[in-house]
Amino acid sequence: MSIDIAIAGFGTVGQGFAEMLALRQGMIREAFGTEARIVAAFDSSSAIYSEEGLDPMALVAAKAETGRVGDEPLVDGAAFLESIDYDVLVEVSPTDIVTGGAGLHHIRSALGAGRHVITVNKGPLALAFAELDTLAKENGAQMRFEGSVGGAMPIINLCRESLMGQEIGSVMGILNGTCNFILSRMDDGLPFEQALKEAQELGYAEADPGYDINGVDTACKVVILANSVFGIDCSYEDVDVTGITAISEEAVAMAAEQNYCIRLIGEISPERLEVSPRLVTKGHPLSVTGTLNVAQVNTDLAGPISISGRGAGRSETASAILSDLLAMMRSFVNNK
Amino acid sequence: MSIDIAIAGFGTVGQGFAEMLALRQGMIREAFGTEARIVAAFDSSSAIYSEEGLDPMALVAAKAETGRVGDEPLVDGAAFLESIDYDVLVEVSPTDIVTGGAGLHHIRSALGAGRHVITVNKGPLALAFAELDTLAKENGAQMRFEGSVGGAMPIINLCRESLMGQEIGSVMGILNGTCNFILSRMDDGLPFEQALKEAQELGYAEADPGYDINGVDTACKVVILANSVFGIDCSYEDVDVTGITAISEEAVAMAAEQNYCIRLIGEISPERLEVSPRLVTKGHPLSVTGTLNVAQVNTDLAGPISISGRGAGRSETASAILSDLLAMMRSFVNNK
Repeated sequence: MSIDIAIAGFGTVGQGFAEMLALRQGMIREAFGTEARIVAAFDSSSAIYSEEGLDPMALVAAKAETGRVGDEPLVDGAAFLESIDYDVLVEVSPTDIVTGGAGLHHIRSALGAGRHVITVNKGPLALAFAELDTLAKENGAQMRFEGSVGGAMPIINLCRESLMGQEIGSVMGILNGTCNFILSRMDDGLPFEQALKEAQELGYAEADPGYDINGVDTACKVVILANSVFGIDCSYEDVDVTGITAISEEAVAMAAEQNYCIRLIGEISPERLEVSPRLVTKGHPLSVTGTLNVAQVNTDLAGPISISGRGAGRSETASAILSDLLAMMRSFVNNK
Repeated sequence: MSIDIAIAGFGTVGQGFAEMLALRQGMIREAFGTEARIVAAFDSSSAIYSEEGLDPMALVAAKAETGRVGDEPLVDGAAFLESIDYDVLVEVSPTDIVTGGAGLHHIRSALGAGRHVITVNKGPLALAFAELDTLAKENGAQMRFEGSVGGAMPIINLCRESLMGQEIGSVMGILNGTCNFILSRMDDGLPFEQALKEAQELGYAEADPGYDINGVDTACKVVILANSVFGIDCSYEDVDVTGITAISEEAVAMAAEQNYCIRLIGEISPERLEVSPRLVTKGHPLSVTGTLNVAQVNTDLAGPISISGRGAGRSETASAILSDLLAMMRSFVNNK
């Protein structure tokens, strides 16, 4: 018996996950007595499927050489998924937070057919969490999405597993590494425009940085945490969002004089869904610098618990997918 | 069916756990369809047992009123445990890191009889981890000890569950809140002696503070992490320990000028078991202030993941025991 994986989207994260699966095959076999195989993969224009399983490294090599993952032309990813046999969909196609993009169709197709889903795609989750969650439950499928919030930072599994006995009052977090890098450089005395330019030069910010600096990306993560940790049925429009573009050098300097720094904080609680710049005391767990993500979970019995990690990166995001896959495999073994 | 608990030691943490169990009974019944009952409790001189289960709040009230938890005189806790029927021992008797104290006898008795153990008692773990771990495995019993390191900070479960797919290269942590409070006050300009006095006045440091400030407590936690996360068979003597008593105001001020603070760091890796004051960059996850504990786990695929939480306190430590109990109950349900 094996766990058969289909990968939707074969960009940097999809390729990173394929490599990581090859790297951890021995560990998985040892821990679960079974294999996790890639049986299918597709990108925007091509697909490949083999019920015997595919060589992950050959897929990565093919993509590098030809720009395509497979030989089969692809028109409709959801239709392709319906034509093949697999256990787990790893959905890592490009994020579209306006329509949900192809990813939303892929996830609906998989869950509707009772396949499990692991995704890091914020679009479908931020737009249609409640619908997808219901679809998963109705079809006896699991949907996991650790990598969609905070990259390598295991905030969702922390809340669901380690903090299971706690009543969680709120989560406050730095959920966008680009903004945190810019604000950290402003702590060093740089004006906003110069800090942004540096972030772009270092590859931390896009040429069009609006999605990050206007707080949109953080708001998507707020929606995902609100739905998954608090069971609040909400979407992007329910979040009160302020970005970091209006933060002046003077404001940062004044904050520093009082031993504060300014950070873009997403707050999730039953009373409030908000993204806004806040004053954070230096030395507080939320006062981290650089591209790190961090989240503080406020619990009734254990007090505040904070977790931080790299919010982005090929290996970091792929490793969140691996962690979801292992959690899934643990549950399969336990429920056998 | 119910999960029957015996509590060894009925001081502040034992009482806190009893109260918490009463508080979460409904949640436990809902999650697992079974009850977690206290059937026995004992302190240094008295014991009580009822196979029908005991009222947690009545135990706490009796202790407050009479100074004893039960009517039965107690001579030997291990012998008492052998005379009763239970599933899980919660071992929270006083820590003795020289001999392991009564706690070591209790844990040996329980594991030897195939009972599961949850403990926050650092003495037995720091002295005899490998022996107890082997005893647990030989008898098909679980031994959990999340609260023994970092109080409410779920570092052990994080490493074992959320980071299961990672190769962990090292763990670096602030594992003693008393030292961190003193060093944080030294950041504010106080000399060591005055910061220590303040910690004592606030109840963060003992009248005899040597166990904390000489690094002994941190070293015990280093031993527990080395054994449990890395599988290194070691005990207290294997750790290279330097405390914080020799840190001068001048050293702290010089560090601050270069944007560093000084923190007492425990380092655990296959190559090194060490407790020593280190320079930490401000804004780094390990630069927290106050009585917080924090640990950074360095992984091969996800990079560094840090977690922080309150390192001590009745409710915080008791909630770590609750979290171990819930993890145990999850595994019982799954393996039915």
